[in-house]
Amino acid sequence: MTKNKRAVVFVRLKDGVLDPQGVTIGKALQQMGYDDFVSVRTGKFFELEINDSNGDIEKKIDEVCSKLLANPVIERYTVEKD
Amino acid sequence: MTKNKRAVVFVRLKDGVLDPQGVTIGKALQQMGYDDFVSVRTGKFFELEINDSNGDIEKKIDEVCSKLLANPVIERYTVEKD
Repeated sequence: MTKNKRAVVFVRLKDGVLDPQGVTIGKALQQMGYDDFVSVRTGKFFELEINDSNGDIEKKIDEVCSKLLANPVIERYTVEKD
Repeated sequence: MTKNKRAVVFVRLKDGVLDPQGVTIGKALQQMGYDDFVSVRTGKFFELEINDSNGDIEKKIDEVCSKLLANPVIERYTVEKD
């Protein structure tokens, strides 16, 4: 039996794409008195548990990222594997 | 002049808390034929740019996490600093 593997996909907005959520959090921090925080950018990540029985999992993760997990027009992604 | 520092806060749902977004993505992957993916858990992260002029930044990051960035009832967070 193959042990399940784990991969984490990090999705961020591309540089130059406006991040309204980050801007709002930044403003909230200022209003709360935390003026050491210069800027905030937000992102999301997905922890995937993988049963790699057929191999070729790198290619599949890449496909899944560009088809479902990230929007390649405005987002970029990185993959970290255990 | 102090150089700006960078910290990343990762926020995940606590173990045992249902992650409907992750479940939905998992089902979508199955329907798309990617049946190697056993489970998906989602999370978010915040890249903070910090002008640490007064020091004591660890404490401030911790405060900001529990007050604004994470909901301590259902979420846990980790901080990574450069």
